[in-house]
Amino acid sequence: MAASELRGGIDLGGTKIEAIVVDATHNVLASARSPTPTTGGPADVAAAMAAAMQKAATAAGVEPHELTGVGVGSPGQVDRQAGTVTGARNLPGWEGTFPLAAKLEALLRVPVGLGNDVQVATSAELELGAGLPYENLIGVFWGTGVGGGVVIDRKLWLGRGGAGEIGHMVVREGGRRCTCGREGCVEAYSGRGALELRARKLHEDGEQTVLFELMREHGRDRLSSSIWDRALKAHDKVAHELIDRAVAALGAGIASAINLLDLEAVIIGGGLGLRLGQPYVERIANAMQPHLFADERPPRVHLAALGDLGGAIGAALVAPPAATRTAGTAGG
Amino acid sequence: MAASELRGGIDLGGTKIEAIVVDATHNVLASARSPTPTTGGPADVAAAMAAAMQKAATAAGVEPHELTGVGVGSPGQVDRQAGTVTGARNLPGWEGTFPLAAKLEALLRVPVGLGNDVQVATSAELELGAGLPYENLIGVFWGTGVGGGVVIDRKLWLGRGGAGEIGHMVVREGGRRCTCGREGCVEAYSGRGALELRARKLHEDGEQTVLFELMREHGRDRLSSSIWDRALKAHDKVAHELIDRAVAALGAGIASAINLLDLEAVIIGGGLGLRLGQPYVERIANAMQPHLFADERPPRVHLAALGDLGGAIGAALVAPPAATRTAGTAGG
Repeated sequence: MAASELRGGIDLGGTKIEAIVVDATHNVLASARSPTPTTGGPADVAAAMAAAMQKAATAAGVEPHELTGVGVGSPGQVDRQAGTVTGARNLPGWEGTFPLAAKLEALLRVPVGLGNDVQVATSAELELGAGLPYENLIGVFWGTGVGGGVVIDRKLWLGRGGAGEIGHMVVREGGRRCTCGREGCVEAYSGRGALELRARKLHEDGEQTVLFELMREHGRDRLSSSIWDRALKAHDKVAHELIDRAVAALGAGIASAINLLDLEAVIIGGGLGLRLGQPYVERIANAMQPHLFADERPPRVHLAALGDLGGAIGAALVAPPAATRTAGTAGG
Repeated sequence: MAASELRGGIDLGGTKIEAIVVDATHNVLASARSPTPTTGGPADVAAAMAAAMQKAATAAGVEPHELTGVGVGSPGQVDRQAGTVTGARNLPGWEGTFPLAAKLEALLRVPVGLGNDVQVATSAELELGAGLPYENLIGVFWGTGVGGGVVIDRKLWLGRGGAGEIGHMVVREGGRRCTCGREGCVEAYSGRGALELRARKLHEDGEQTVLFELMREHGRDRLSSSIWDRALKAHDKVAHELIDRAVAALGAGIASAINLLDLEAVIIGGGLGLRLGQPYVERIANAMQPHLFADERPPRVHLAALGDLGGAIGAALVAPPAATRTAGTAGG
């Protein structure tokens, strides 16, 4: 296969960077992963992204500049036209606007396209994954935060540009403080960031939990999805209580979205969603049920079908098409 | 103007029936109102609807059968094709399916079209009212219940047929029991039905309130929107507390909808919304603000522009067009 038919995809997460090379039919030929820098600023993050992309390309037997293009799924406000990312929470020093596309193009010598991380992951599930059979659905990405992608008539609904914030739907007025600063959001109970804050508080207050032991044993500095999974399997009481509360909040928030939009399907993805898998998809569906107005016909609830690489596969979908490549761009 | 250019519209509410005659440009030529029967069954409600329509037609100087057609906005599940209404809560003995269109056609000798009450009211605001400048919006109808109409790209979004239940979005998990049987819905705190139950409870528990005195003085058997308005103006503490709580729940629920869909505008209608008017529209907008994720660009929030007759004007929009009228139909 000619390298010119290959595209790159980079999923920029709060915890890790996942880079892949895909062929014209979206098959993943190679992948590489590296931790997201926790210090420095956007330029350091861009350098880590370029390094991961280089590694994936090498594993696929090509150089990055031989790819048709590279697509990026990024948190924060993404301006596709301008190629910039603004205010990416969970990334170091990224309060302002950074020209991520131009920076990566300079480092990789290949055209780069940007998309919002949750939106590209939703598109990937819609085009290639669990969303294929449906006209309308919501993708719910349960990770450090809780993001959502609303699909109406097989198109991502963006509203005025910021639609999909299911993590910031209110499930408890005056409830727990969210990492966004507001009160009672779904994410305040369900986001992995909020869960870790809560677990630390309970631990400091003297509650017994294996969560932080497991974290140290596995050489982590935060409670990753796999640590939560292990703690649940070890019947850790704190982990079970917090995850049960998270599932309840997700159930109420997703049911509210369904009551408003009466969608056909819900797709659960994200780091925690994928790690906890099908049993927890069923728990979320059960938690939705008592809140559904049309409870005799609940929507179908699926686990994201593309798995851990779904975000990067979605990112590759926003790689600039071959036609946009000019000699000038290719030369960097 | 020839009678054949005139249409009828009937807004079937839980408290009152509003019938109007409109001309081809949606001007209201005459209207008539009667209380919704509180006993009997669907046939009694249909008879009261026909009587109100007859009265409006007479006031407009025509007979009902001279109208092009009559449209009805009804609560419950409306099957437009079959001409039936199923499970209309708040209407007497209407748990099952009733052939409302056929019944009214027999009584009025004119073709009848049906639509869902909230949907036709949203369409009316979209086509003729406060929604005219917008591509997407949500109509929130604050009355006995709390209904919603979601407009995406200037079309009503129905989902699988039941979209718009903003009144049953969850704002407080495990919260107050809603009239729908679930817990913590917007409507459990905001619907006039729920508000009356709560006021009665507080009154029975010995709280001082003028609400029920006002109700008796004005010859009502329930707390109508005008009774709430009068009690607020009389600085009744219970009324203020309950309406403040209602506004808070509406604010949280509408903000959740905006966080999910990032819509341009919110239109507040319904019996209570219209009666309490612009000052309360502003209170609802203020109550939304702390929950809005993109709080730097809140949606525009408007009072419904068509007022009390908006539901009936919307109903007239679903009157069968002149072309569908045949000699056979016209003859009844």
